[in-house]
Amino acid sequence: MAAPELGTGPAVLAVDVGGTQLKAAVLDGAGRLGGVVRRPTPRSAEDPGDAIVVGVAALLDELQRPDQRIGAIGLTIPGVVDEAAGIGRWSANLGWRDFGFRDALAARTELPIAVAHDVRAAGTAEARLGAARGVADAAIVVVGTGIAAALRIDGHSYAGNGSAGELGHLVIDPSGPRCACGKHGCLETLAAAPAIVRTYQELGGELVSGAAEVLARAQGGDQRAVHAWSSATSALGAGLGALSALVAPELIVLGGGLAEAGDALLGPVRAALSDYCAGLNVPRLVRAELGHDAGTWGAAILARDALLTR
Amino acid sequence: MAAPELGTGPAVLAVDVGGTQLKAAVLDGAGRLGGVVRRPTPRSAEDPGDAIVVGVAALLDELQRPDQRIGAIGLTIPGVVDEAAGIGRWSANLGWRDFGFRDALAARTELPIAVAHDVRAAGTAEARLGAARGVADAAIVVVGTGIAAALRIDGHSYAGNGSAGELGHLVIDPSGPRCACGKHGCLETLAAAPAIVRTYQELGGELVSGAAEVLARAQGGDQRAVHAWSSATSALGAGLGALSALVAPELIVLGGGLAEAGDALLGPVRAALSDYCAGLNVPRLVRAELGHDAGTWGAAILARDALLTR
Repeated sequence: MAAPELGTGPAVLAVDVGGTQLKAAVLDGAGRLGGVVRRPTPRSAEDPGDAIVVGVAALLDELQRPDQRIGAIGLTIPGVVDEAAGIGRWSANLGWRDFGFRDALAARTELPIAVAHDVRAAGTAEARLGAARGVADAAIVVVGTGIAAALRIDGHSYAGNGSAGELGHLVIDPSGPRCACGKHGCLETLAAAPAIVRTYQELGGELVSGAAEVLARAQGGDQRAVHAWSSATSALGAGLGALSALVAPELIVLGGGLAEAGDALLGPVRAALSDYCAGLNVPRLVRAELGHDAGTWGAAILARDALLTR
Repeated sequence: MAAPELGTGPAVLAVDVGGTQLKAAVLDGAGRLGGVVRRPTPRSAEDPGDAIVVGVAALLDELQRPDQRIGAIGLTIPGVVDEAAGIGRWSANLGWRDFGFRDALAARTELPIAVAHDVRAAGTAEARLGAARGVADAAIVVVGTGIAAALRIDGHSYAGNGSAGELGHLVIDPSGPRCACGKHGCLETLAAAPAIVRTYQELGGELVSGAAEVLARAQGGDQRAVHAWSSATSALGAGLGALSALVAPELIVLGGGLAEAGDALLGPVRAALSDYCAGLNVPRLVRAELGHDAGTWGAAILARDALLTR
């Protein structure tokens, strides 16, 4: 695939706030994304939202160049997000509650700011530039340390009452492990990367560095690893099956760290999805195209859109 | 509540095709629905679609009056429906496959015909005239011998790839009973009216006429009935919780035969839904307003709309 481009327009700063890393890049006037800069996510127990704002403003100073003025900032954040108001409603991991990112960052930088949910922004990027181009009804599912979906309905990002796409907290098996949310057997407890490691170790497996190593061991014939991988892919297929029975997208795009496994993930998940959809239409299942940079691309798109609609 | 009205316009015939009954009524020029006529659903092993068309044409002759010409027919059918093409893709219960209801009925009656999925049509009626008036993102859930949902997204009926809203085939508990679809523990096997009767009888309960009698016995102190009812309402709450985690409507409307139970259904379902949505926004849950006639109202609305958009 050719490197994606967004077309000519103002240069903007794209910042993707993750639980451990803040990723930033400048989209230039030609619509190309520059090299991604990574920083540890700034944290503050007293004012976690403001710590992010201060860190983003410092990145703006660092990445600003005299020959290319940055015209807007796109910021993607995790948790529950009110995108229209630019407010981070809450993040269990990073600690803010009802923090007005848009207004605080605009006051500090005097730039237009767009704020979006990280997974929905990645979905917007896959829809505009990646694997979901031209598809009206699609779900972009990000599987990594957590699991969430961005829903595209009739060509638009859909958030419902604000919590749409919380696929990770769908109960797949009520006799499963207890989830941080209080329920048992949520998809995240069965198919996210940490769950794969935990299942493997509960089966008596070796100490491993992560889910990728469990897959490598499975491919090398370690039967405990085979079982842990297959248990996770079955659960993920059931989760996508439930998504299909309710939302019935034409296309499901799988992204996030676990999707790096490629066909070793997509093959068994596709089979489980197809089993679940007996009698229903089965969505196509493909791998995301923008990889780790989907969130950063999403932030860039939103910043450009914010300038266009002013 | 005042009797619903659709406003002035052409008179139309509304026909709601169910698994056992065909319900028909004329919507008059003032927008009032006349008395509902019921007939056994016409069946034919050789040509099940045509048997419906012949039956609807006979009803048209019967209900046509010289002083009020019927200008269109709205027909709602179960199963998988291609509404844009007017085709019944398939009905497991009634037996057709890819039958062109719109064209066949138009050829026979020389009237404009609108064809819609029965549950989505009931959803359209609740959205236009009933409990979901003025709500952009809503789910209308019909619980009776089966369970299905009509999704309203941004004020429009949403079908996705054609199978959206198949809530009855969401797996709630993989260790549950085998479903007709081949999976285990689908919501329909746990919470539809026949499931409530089956659970009660498996617990050693008396022979009963239906789910309403199980509820009556539960309210009279029969502990087996209490258990059967509570098991069904928990499962239904989990199903609506999964719907909320994925689709996040502002409002869920409960209709169908089981909703006749009123607060005896809504109370425990609301509690289970709220438990499921820990950390997420919880949709409001209310009872449908149009009762048994929602599907017939939906057919009338679609027939009127078909005439307006010609």
